Parts: sequence; C-alpha cells; structure tokens
Amino acid sequence: MVAQASLFGPVQDDMVLVETALDRVRAVEYPPLAKMLDHVLGASGKRMRPAITLMAGSFQRYDLDLLVPLAASIEVLHTATLVHDDVIDQADTRRGRATANALFNNAPSVFLGDFMFAHSAELVARTGNIRVIRLFAQTLMRMATGELQQDISAYDPNKRISDYLARIAGKTASLFAAASEGGAIVSGAPEPWIAALRDYGFNLGMAFQVMDDILDFTADEAVLGKPAGNDLKEGTLTLPSLLLLEDDPSPRNPVRRLFGAQRNRDRLLAGALAAIRDSGVITRARARAEEFAVTARATLAPLPDNDARAALDGLITYVLERDH
Amino acid sequence: MVAQASLFGPVQDDMVLVETALDRVRAVEYPPLAKMLDHVLGASGKRMRPAITLMAGSFQRYDLDLLVPLAASIEVLHTATLVHDDVIDQADTRRGRATANALFNNAPSVFLGDFMFAHSAELVARTGNIRVIRLFAQTLMRMATGELQQDISAYDPNKRISDYLARIAGKTASLFAAASEGGAIVSGAPEPWIAALRDYGFNLGMAFQVMDDILDFTADEAVLGKPAGNDLKEGTLTLPSLLLLEDDPSPRNPVRRLFGAQRNRDRLLAGALAAIRDSGVITRARARAEEFAVTARATLAPLPDNDARAALDGLITYVLERDH
Repeated sequence: MVAQASLFGPVQDDMVLVETALDRVRAVEYPPLAKMLDHVLGASGKRMRPAITLMAGSFQRYDLDLLVPLAASIEVLHTATLVHDDVIDQADTRRGRATANALFNNAPSVFLGDFMFAHSAELVARTGNIRVIRLFAQTLMRMATGELQQDISAYDPNKRISDYLARIAGKTASLFAAASEGGAIVSGAPEPWIAALRDYGFNLGMAFQVMDDILDFTADEAVLGKPAGNDLKEGTLTLPSLLLLEDDPSPRNPVRRLFGAQRNRDRLLAGALAAIRDSGVITRARARAEEFAVTARATLAPLPDNDARAALDGLITYVLERDH
Repeated sequence: MVAQASLFGPVQDDMVLVETALDRVRAVEYPPLAKMLDHVLGASGKRMRPAITLMAGSFQRYDLDLLVPLAASIEVLHTATLVHDDVIDQADTRRGRATANALFNNAPSVFLGDFMFAHSAELVARTGNIRVIRLFAQTLMRMATGELQQDISAYDPNKRISDYLARIAGKTASLFAAASEGGAIVSGAPEPWIAALRDYGFNLGMAFQVMDDILDFTADEAVLGKPAGNDLKEGTLTLPSLLLLEDDPSPRNPVRRLFGAQRNRDRLLAGALAAIRDSGVITRARARAEEFAVTARATLAPLPDNDARAALDGLITYVLERDH
C-alpha cells in the first residue's frame, strides 16, 4: 500500500498552498458563515481531487499561480456537493464529524452550499482560462444531474447496472475527470495528453466510487466516519446490491423485500446487508472497480514517464486498497 | 404607469432571443430534469433582470452574441435562487403556480437549483469575458450570504433596519447591479458608465425589494400569485414590520408578541398584519423605496440621453407603481 505521506509524490509539498487557498475561502465577514465554512472545509478530507489537479499540471508548464486556484476550486466544489448531499440524506455524520445540516440546520446548509459553488466559480475564474471555466460549469451540470438521478431512482429495484454507472459517472467521475483535465489544460499540455488525463481522471473516479460503494457495506463504521449500510437504508442501489438483484430477480430477493416493505425495515435491512456481505457480489463489484483501474492505468501510457505519472499511477493502487 | 408592452423600450423585441436561450437551457437529455426546468423557466416572470442587461449594453457596442447569453445567465441564476428559496420556505406557490419543491419534492429541487447555477455559469462563460465571469461569481456569493442572513435572523425582533438593508442588498440588489454592470462591461462601455450602470442597478434593486416587501402586506393575493403576509408568517422582518418595531419597542408590539408566541399564532399574525396595514409604516417604507428610486434616476445622468436610458428610467417608475 502506498504510504499516505508520499501519496501525492512530487506535488505533496505544494499541497500546503492549496490548504492556504482553502483557508482564505473561510475568511468571510459574516461570522455565522465563517463558522460553517470552518467546519466543512476544516474536516480534513483526503484532498485527492486537488492533488490530481497539481499532478496533471506537472507534465508541461507547472504554474502554481494557475494550478492552486483551480485545485482549490475543485475541492470547494466537491465539498459544496457534499453539503447539499448531506442535507438531502439528512445525514448526521461525514468524515467522522457532524454534518453541516446536523449542526446548523437544513436551510443555512443549502445556502452554505450555494455560497461555496459561487466561491469555487470565483476561484476557477482566477485562472483566466475560459476553456477551464466552461469545463468547470459543465462538470457541475453533470454532477447535479447525477445527484438528481440518484435521488429520483431511490427505492426503485428495477434500476439497472447501466443506470448506476451513468449516475456515478455524473456524480463522481466527472469531477475527477475535470480535476485532471483542468490541470492539464492550464499547464498548456498538448491535446493528446489532455485527453489522456481526462480519461485517467474519469476511470479513476469510477473505480473510486465503486470502491466507495463497496466500503459502505464492508468497512468498519469507526474507520468509515459514517454509518455503514447507509446507501441501502436510504434506498440507493449501488453495484453490490444491483448485482444481487440481477442474480435473483424474484420477489424474495432481500433487497426487493426491503424496498417493498412498510414494516420490519430494520430487520429486513440487516438481512439484505448480510446477504450482500456473504454472497460473491462484493468480489464481483471489486472486479469491476479493478477493470476501471486497469483502464485508468492504460490511459497514462502516452504521458512522459516521470514522478508525476508515477504518483498518478500510485493513486490508482491507493483507490483500490483504501479501507475508508 | 408604463405599459408592460413597451416597458423594455428599444430592447423589447430582442427579448425573444433571451427566451430562445432560456428554451435551450430546458433542452436536457434526462426527462425528469427537463420537466422540472420546463416548469420553473416556463413560469413567465417579468424578465426584468435580463432586460436590464440588454438595456445596459445599449450605450456602446450592442453585441447580442455576448449580451443574450449574459442576460439568460442572469435570469437562470435568479430562477435558481428562487428554487432554493422555495425549498427553504416550504413555499407552495410562486408566480401563481405550484413551486418546484411542492411538485417535485425538496431533494430534486435542491439539485435542480444546483444544475441551474451551473448552467448559468456556463452561459456567462460564453461571453469569454473574465471580468464578467468573476462579477457573476461574486454576485452569487453575495446573494447566498444575503439569503443566509435572512434565514439566520428569522424570528429575531432585535434585528435593525440596517441589517435588513444589508440583507436585501445581498439577496436582491446585487443581482440587479450585476445585470446592469455586466451588460455595460461586455458592451465595452467606458468605466464611468459601467460604474453608473452598476449603481443604477443596485438602487433599482433596493427600490424593487422594498416595494416587493410592501406588496407582501398590501397586495391582492390573486394578483400577487402567492399568499400575502407570508414574510411575517415565516419570521422574516422586512421594512414595514421593522418600522413598527422601531416605533414601539415594548413587549406589546404585535410583531414582538407574534414572534414570542407558542400558541394562537394565526390570530397574532392577523393582528400584526392589521397593525402594519393600518399604521403609517407602509407609507414610510414606500418613501424609503422612493429614495432609492431617486438615487437610481440620478445615476443615469452621465449616460447618453437615448432610448435605452429612457427605458431604464421608465423601469424605475414601473418598480414603484407595480401592484405585483
């Protein structure tokens, strides 16, 4: 397993500049807003997405004056979507801490998310690069559509794996792709490298989300920082539960029984979780994540063989091996 | 009163291009999203903000290839904030129609708003003008902060008129200012005209919001398209109720009694509404709106005396005279 300390390879040290930029986002005049921003941006995420931006910007002109605002923008955008997600899911914990909506209520959290979307747009505009600004806006459109698909398809046992893949492509992989493609664009990389880095980000993001959805079933709750089994409880079908539905489309399928039930939902949830954990679907879901990882690795081939490429490669391994 | 048909003067006919741009926003692949967009963008608002953009862009190079995307962006941004507002207020009607949250539930409405923020960012990026893009992002930051202030200060009878003015400056006037300033910027107007048009938009927006808040007390519900007296019911203090609190800071003030009550809230609300309608506070609030209108009118002085300036001037009259 790649050690966290060196996970970001040659850009590791520059990540402190991204943290400084994120600190500046928290410096607002209105005290209640400052408190909320402190809470959600202070929760130390892995900062994978902004690190990818710096790495992807390492193949041509590594200009931190452009890459740092872009990287910070990506992280603020990501965190804003989490804030709105948690409002919708009525989630109480995230990354082992209380969510914004649990601490500050729903209404302020909606506007907190809106403020953060705006601030991320402001940060990306500082690159002065219209192509990257449009990529940013189109990415948020894809993400919001993915979130909408997830919400609207909740508790629908007739959804298919292709729906799931389309949904996580929008919700998660599009932002990984933009983080990577954006870094390449502002560094002035040639078009084939930009395309390679977009595809890398996309496939890494797909692997990341499939693994994330597996961890929701398998991870230790304390390590995960949020309740396990939450997706199924919220009616969200992810790859393991969809594979179980595919194997047995009968009304006796424990997921179908859970979604159709008005009573005994706790017991039926426990039964469905056990069925998923004890069957082979986790292994098969993992194999699908590995396929995305293999594709991500292959996309790196056209890039110069340097430390940044090695770090991007290491990130693929990390995504498959992480336990939370 | 200025007739609606000619309200937008020389840009009236070009507003059809803005409608076409808004129609294009509704053309998305995912059917549930298309349906939601149809509903919220189809509700024929007055389109004042995009019209202001076209008018403000009429003093130098009137380039519809830049002005129309910007104008559409402003309207989409405005509508997105209404969608999130209605989620927070649990409002059932807006512009005489069911709100998105009432029709489609809260969660999809949050993501609908997010999608629309993103699309408005995409539209403004099409101007290729970094200054306008940053203005757009900063405006949304101000608007979200204003909305947050409104929510956090709800049911607080110790708030002051200065808090109210700061809040509506963020929530409403900042977007009118950006609509006007943005049009001036993309048309390549000289800096003094840009500043004049920003100040015009800001003061018009302040007058508009004060009048809007008065109409919440005085307008006919059928004409208003939403329930009257709603602000006070939601705990939002606007200028009339703040003036009443200022006149009588005792615990017997009907607004103070309403905000402190656990029971008989319907009766206390009716009492507070009657007290506001029967006192002189409506007239005094109106006088404050007129002050903003006078300032807005004065800001137009440095601009060339043409049809666009006359239309901007007419809009000030309209804002003071409208009944919904």
